[in-house]
Amino acid sequence: MGGMNAIAPCSPLVRRSVAALAPYVPGQQLENVIKLNTNENPYPPSPAVGEALRGCDPAALRLYPNANCDGLRARLGEIFGCGPECAFAGNGSDEILRLAMSCFTTEERPAAAAFHPTYSLYPVLAAAAGVPYREVELAEDFGWAEPEGVDGAGLFLLANPNAPTGVLQPVERIRAFAARFGGVVLVDEAYVDFAGEGASAAGLALESENVLVCRTFSKSGALAGMRVGYVLGNPGLIGAFQRLKDSYNVDRLAQATALAVLSDLPYLRETAARVAATRDRVAAELRRRGWRLTDSRANFLWAKPPEGQSAGDIQRQLLEKGILVRHFPADPRTRDWLRISVGTEEQMDAVLAAL
Amino acid sequence: MGGMNAIAPCSPLVRRSVAALAPYVPGQQLENVIKLNTNENPYPPSPAVGEALRGCDPAALRLYPNANCDGLRARLGEIFGCGPECAFAGNGSDEILRLAMSCFTTEERPAAAAFHPTYSLYPVLAAAAGVPYREVELAEDFGWAEPEGVDGAGLFLLANPNAPTGVLQPVERIRAFAARFGGVVLVDEAYVDFAGEGASAAGLALESENVLVCRTFSKSGALAGMRVGYVLGNPGLIGAFQRLKDSYNVDRLAQATALAVLSDLPYLRETAARVAATRDRVAAELRRRGWRLTDSRANFLWAKPPEGQSAGDIQRQLLEKGILVRHFPADPRTRDWLRISVGTEEQMDAVLAAL
Repeated sequence: MGGMNAIAPCSPLVRRSVAALAPYVPGQQLENVIKLNTNENPYPPSPAVGEALRGCDPAALRLYPNANCDGLRARLGEIFGCGPECAFAGNGSDEILRLAMSCFTTEERPAAAAFHPTYSLYPVLAAAAGVPYREVELAEDFGWAEPEGVDGAGLFLLANPNAPTGVLQPVERIRAFAARFGGVVLVDEAYVDFAGEGASAAGLALESENVLVCRTFSKSGALAGMRVGYVLGNPGLIGAFQRLKDSYNVDRLAQATALAVLSDLPYLRETAARVAATRDRVAAELRRRGWRLTDSRANFLWAKPPEGQSAGDIQRQLLEKGILVRHFPADPRTRDWLRISVGTEEQMDAVLAAL
Repeated sequence: MGGMNAIAPCSPLVRRSVAALAPYVPGQQLENVIKLNTNENPYPPSPAVGEALRGCDPAALRLYPNANCDGLRARLGEIFGCGPECAFAGNGSDEILRLAMSCFTTEERPAAAAFHPTYSLYPVLAAAAGVPYREVELAEDFGWAEPEGVDGAGLFLLANPNAPTGVLQPVERIRAFAARFGGVVLVDEAYVDFAGEGASAAGLALESENVLVCRTFSKSGALAGMRVGYVLGNPGLIGAFQRLKDSYNVDRLAQATALAVLSDLPYLRETAARVAATRDRVAAELRRRGWRLTDSRANFLWAKPPEGQSAGDIQRQLLEKGILVRHFPADPRTRDWLRISVGTEEQMDAVLAAL
């Protein structure tokens, strides 16, 4: 894989700012391991997804997809009590985050800002868009720090629960921050379905002038392979995505499988609750063994080994035992910690046994 | 549909250059018509596509796709006799064209250029990327015109066969142009499989420093619904796409169905040849009736009605008879012409009967 995916040095015909980009490094996709490094759902998507695929006439694939995901947006409107003009669907929330970087960093407020540490894709997208990126350091325990020095930012990216820390901020705190922030607050709720009732800022987004909520089907929906995300908010913000997106950004089967997930929300809730229960059980056990953990409300644990043990060493030892977890060694704020995606009960028992 | 897809005016929190964008207008997706307005393939994709879908385990969709389309790039390498580092796959060729707009418009050569008329997406993508866009007027018969005044362009987009005119330029002319052009020539070969032997510049791209060839599965592959395109060229150019793309830009089923198309190239060639034969038959008949047509080598006809008949009127009359064709009324170069996608023999007989 390494050789195949190495990127060649750029020709002098390439824009220098592009040639200088360091692409986002996704977690490794190894096979024959217990794969707990990319926060995928350990459970398959709803049986409705398989039914949707079996119901798909391959001949229909010759036709372009619905360019605006009308069916998906209408269904989201039913679920969230809003019109379809309050929803936009993208080729994964990656596309939404990328578009947001250009839509809401304005002539007057040209920067983007986010907490640190947070989802490591944000600065990559900022660099790709040529947007200055400002970081607000979280507290030592990865809790809230009042954002200062972000008056020049048109966009604040707020992962909630945060990644890789799992920490959830209450909606009221986000509401208060948004009320005094002059730009757009994009609440990235990739993991919110694992956070329990009342965690989502979707209601806030739909009544606010400057809050967006971004969701993905990749985690709780168990559709990481299909690349569908969506964003909710007022039409004056949502329209910006519609203007800038690729013409047909979400393919037919992605739209169909996402709709299938939304047709079976009880399954989604039930599997998310199982993941959350496993998470809390394993967190308690690790704490008992002397690990330090945040109160993760996501589908991963953010865990620091007991004094005297190195996170990097443990990651390597786990990999030797066929268990892949994520380590972010480049950043002093994260290098002493491991991000362990929550798998099935059996997978997590294997982790506990291996540690 | 109209109301649902109307885009709301943008909030003042949106970047003004985004709020001012006029999105690309795709051809209408009407049902219960003979749909000859978006150059889709009238024949379904290879049976291998259906087999690939049936062979897909829905449970696997919980996992992220291969981020770099390794399987697809390896197969393209086999077909074109190059390494996978010479190929990049995108979420439709739309994504590739969008990325090219930022990758190859450089600090020294900041503009993009193309012939006019050509694919109407190009200026939309240039505007979205904030890239100046220069047009080189084609000859009166839509034939080649020597590009002048494009020395400030880092990227020349050359649709070949051209859309909406169907005119094919010989590879040797492109080679000569590229040899004296200081930027990158991107040959957009969306329709090349309908153009017969020797039409493709893929070989040129693989031996050249500044030529790229872009292809799509949407037309000859009959996979418009799945959004897969690719670009071939030297690794120093291809690497720029890899740096700027979204992390997981092509989903699992898009990769699987595209690979299925490539597993059955005889089917693709046979259906493309049928489309080309129908095209030539209908073109001859329309010429006999006094229409003016270019020598289209694509899967559409570019046709001007006989003196005294208006293209717009004919489009409307055809629509009343349940036949949808494309008219571009806003541009003086195109408003007297119709672009008629080539359907099945029976569909085209219906068109001829209706005219």
